[in-house]
Amino acid sequence: MQDRIRHPALRQRITSADQAAALIEDGMTVGMSGFTRAGDAKAVPAALARRAKQAPLHIGLMTGASLGHDTDRLLTEAGVLSRRLPFQTDPTLRRAINHGDVAYVDHHLSDTAEQLRAGHLPAVDLAIIEAAAITESGAIVPTMSVGNSAAFAQQARQIVIELNTSVPAAIEGLHDIYVPGARPHRGPIDLCSVSQRIGGHAISVDPSRIAAIVMTDQPDSPSNALPPDADTQLIAGHINDFLLNEVRRGRLQRSLLPLQAGIGTIANAVLHGFVDSPFENLTMYSEVLQDSAIELLDLGKLGFASASSITVSASVHQRILDRIEHYRERIVLRPQEISNAPELVRRLGIVAINTALEFDLYGNVNSTHVSGTQMMNGIGGSGDFARNAHLAIFVSKSIAKGGDISSVVPMVSHVDHTEHDVDVLVTEVGLADLRGLAPRERARAVIENCVHSSYRDALRDYFNRACLRGGQTPHVLEEAFSWHQRQRDTGSMLEGARALLVA
Amino acid sequence: MQDRIRHPALRQRITSADQAAALIEDGMTVGMSGFTRAGDAKAVPAALARRAKQAPLHIGLMTGASLGHDTDRLLTEAGVLSRRLPFQTDPTLRRAINHGDVAYVDHHLSDTAEQLRAGHLPAVDLAIIEAAAITESGAIVPTMSVGNSAAFAQQARQIVIELNTSVPAAIEGLHDIYVPGARPHRGPIDLCSVSQRIGGHAISVDPSRIAAIVMTDQPDSPSNALPPDADTQLIAGHINDFLLNEVRRGRLQRSLLPLQAGIGTIANAVLHGFVDSPFENLTMYSEVLQDSAIELLDLGKLGFASASSITVSASVHQRILDRIEHYRERIVLRPQEISNAPELVRRLGIVAINTALEFDLYGNVNSTHVSGTQMMNGIGGSGDFARNAHLAIFVSKSIAKGGDISSVVPMVSHVDHTEHDVDVLVTEVGLADLRGLAPRERARAVIENCVHSSYRDALRDYFNRACLRGGQTPHVLEEAFSWHQRQRDTGSMLEGARALLVA
Repeated sequence: MQDRIRHPALRQRITSADQAAALIEDGMTVGMSGFTRAGDAKAVPAALARRAKQAPLHIGLMTGASLGHDTDRLLTEAGVLSRRLPFQTDPTLRRAINHGDVAYVDHHLSDTAEQLRAGHLPAVDLAIIEAAAITESGAIVPTMSVGNSAAFAQQARQIVIELNTSVPAAIEGLHDIYVPGARPHRGPIDLCSVSQRIGGHAISVDPSRIAAIVMTDQPDSPSNALPPDADTQLIAGHINDFLLNEVRRGRLQRSLLPLQAGIGTIANAVLHGFVDSPFENLTMYSEVLQDSAIELLDLGKLGFASASSITVSASVHQRILDRIEHYRERIVLRPQEISNAPELVRRLGIVAINTALEFDLYGNVNSTHVSGTQMMNGIGGSGDFARNAHLAIFVSKSIAKGGDISSVVPMVSHVDHTEHDVDVLVTEVGLADLRGLAPRERARAVIENCVHSSYRDALRDYFNRACLRGGQTPHVLEEAFSWHQRQRDTGSMLEGARALLVA
Repeated sequence: MQDRIRHPALRQRITSADQAAALIEDGMTVGMSGFTRAGDAKAVPAALARRAKQAPLHIGLMTGASLGHDTDRLLTEAGVLSRRLPFQTDPTLRRAINHGDVAYVDHHLSDTAEQLRAGHLPAVDLAIIEAAAITESGAIVPTMSVGNSAAFAQQARQIVIELNTSVPAAIEGLHDIYVPGARPHRGPIDLCSVSQRIGGHAISVDPSRIAAIVMTDQPDSPSNALPPDADTQLIAGHINDFLLNEVRRGRLQRSLLPLQAGIGTIANAVLHGFVDSPFENLTMYSEVLQDSAIELLDLGKLGFASASSITVSASVHQRILDRIEHYRERIVLRPQEISNAPELVRRLGIVAINTALEFDLYGNVNSTHVSGTQMMNGIGGSGDFARNAHLAIFVSKSIAKGGDISSVVPMVSHVDHTEHDVDVLVTEVGLADLRGLAPRERARAVIENCVHSSYRDALRDYFNRACLRGGQTPHVLEEAFSWHQRQRDTGSMLEGARALLVA
């Protein structure tokens, strides 16, 4: 205990999760740790959900990103959430959002802390932060993510700590806590390489604001990424070939530039594809590290990895904790406004690989909305990286639902990334290199390289008929969403595609 | 002449525009100075157009932004342009682009130099740069814009200088030429206030690459911004009221934060509205300075202005040149990758005011494409600023063409700025503050505050019916572009709007 809570007076504040949850009042804005299931507060939100079933209350909840432990489900079922940001992945919460019951604000992940400081969002009343230790000065040592914890803790009037003893105390030193200063006198973020440290090991707060400490020992929820399959291996192969060609042409070195890969199955599989690549001394500057990143580190392919969270399977999680001193020298976790900082993404020159829900002829990408209306998860950090990356690569399987959905459509039903921000599109079919191309040229590259064969003729037909109408970005506006409409009406885009061909 | 060309050997390279134009070969990529009609190369492109009428040739042309002197028209009519980027505003070129005759690549203006350095675009073969002087070392002193001139001159194998004697030699010292280093060893852009200088006064090049010098004396084409009218005054008033409220709430100081205003009539008028505002000691960190900025400087409302070009009326142009020593202390011109740098926009905390062609219920903005297909000008710097601004404000009159077009539509027909990047929308009707709102809340704010009264009921009806279908971002997908289709078929969106109400 003395190792974990080194500020003696704070040891008096240890309490139960239920008592800590009682600090939360109706109408509060609560900021919680947790980024892609890692380092989330676990006990207090569960206690809050139990309490709310007895005595209803509503809060606005901000986190780093998605949570584990079904926390978003429990809070949704208890009716606690009136407002939620900046990211989520829970099916129950998703239904409530799409039903209009929870106001969901889908943020660029670098932006939430900035908006809080600017006063553009309601101030955080209470922060709930998972910690591995509290230092002599009362500073908070995070666990497997940093997320927005520093911004929340620095702004909150009261802080609740969940001190998780399942995370070794030796994790201290893994984190680099740097928070940009207030405007108008802010200086540069003075970080010029992925391994550089520019801040402290812990989140400095006035210890008098630490209102409660709850002891826990639950591990993080494991990653739910699926293993690579034949299609994701093809996608990884196309990206490897493309990058190798960049090396051959002298545009990249064999160590490439720092890699970023989004959360999820496809990005994890793409990164796994680097195992058998000719690249070496790779680095990562990403928001999340998945199993593939640890695999590459262990193989020595990857020399250093910077992120805001570590979201891995249960076995890899244990491997990291067992050898935390080893990984502490090879990984740094930063606040998400630093891991995703536009300033740093452009300076370092990131190779950014993110997943698209769908993309269109001209390279606009939908990352969030099924059929333009139903929220899936959120934009996450994809925009932070894609806009300023050296290379903005988006990946998707060319079809979904056994071929009933084409991921390549005439016009995306929702735009998260505009054609200005998308360099390369990849499906298992192939890779379209869109750099320096005008929209009509982009369309030809997408049709030839990315669309599934069962949709190619229909997409080409749409494009040809659109070109007859002219324009920088030709469209047949009344048919632009006809594939989505057919899928809604008949369950498949394919018939729509066939019908267009016949028409 | 000795004042203007201080490197003696270079005086031997003075030649005619026709002889300089003869250096341009078929298939070349040419980079020319010029940003929003300011500081553009004038004589050599005209000579190139004359030559091409005799002996056809094709080039890819890159500039800073739009050109004056009908250069884009002359080159288009002569069939010279096969590829054009990153911005244009010429009606003849626009027709050729929309007809598919010229491949137009519409860039974020901060991005072109970066893509050139990365090798993502064809390298510049020849640069044509307007200069006020050439220094002892052969460095190029720009005129009324910097644009991409530094990037072009540093990459080109050959450089042609247009030495324009209509610009006083005393302009030397107005510019701050800083070019980011190569990755992966790039450092921060060490600029922390709008008036700070971090580079040199001129563009350093190896003088042996200066192949020709052409003497000119033509002034820049004057700005074609229209004077403020009743609607733009209302828009300016709404913005003033909004910012004053931010000051009252302690979120901004009375000097605000550095202002950016896009090119054109509405942005110029909005800035003009600060003349009678209670704000003081204002600063600008923008890409272009129009008449309104000079007016605010002269009144002492504006203390300092940073930009990449000065695009003003003929009389203001003359006033600046007559007192260039005075303005040189109050204005700095930078390369557009610095004036528009995401790193600096976020650090400084810009209040960004840009013009929308149309915007939708949820705050997505179309800056470029009429009816989703026909290119107007280009995205320019609006994305560079909006994404990272302290406040991203978009302005538009609520209707166009006497009411036949609503600028506020159910769904924009092309997305340049997503809802993630848009904080405030303003029309003459009113102002919608979208900060921290979920999409359905954004829609209500837009309907109540921005849409013209003749379209309000129809837009509300669309939204209500969309909400019945559910979703984070409710839409009636098959009607999303029905207003645009009606306008195409009947000449007016209004009947479409009425028909929807009846339906």
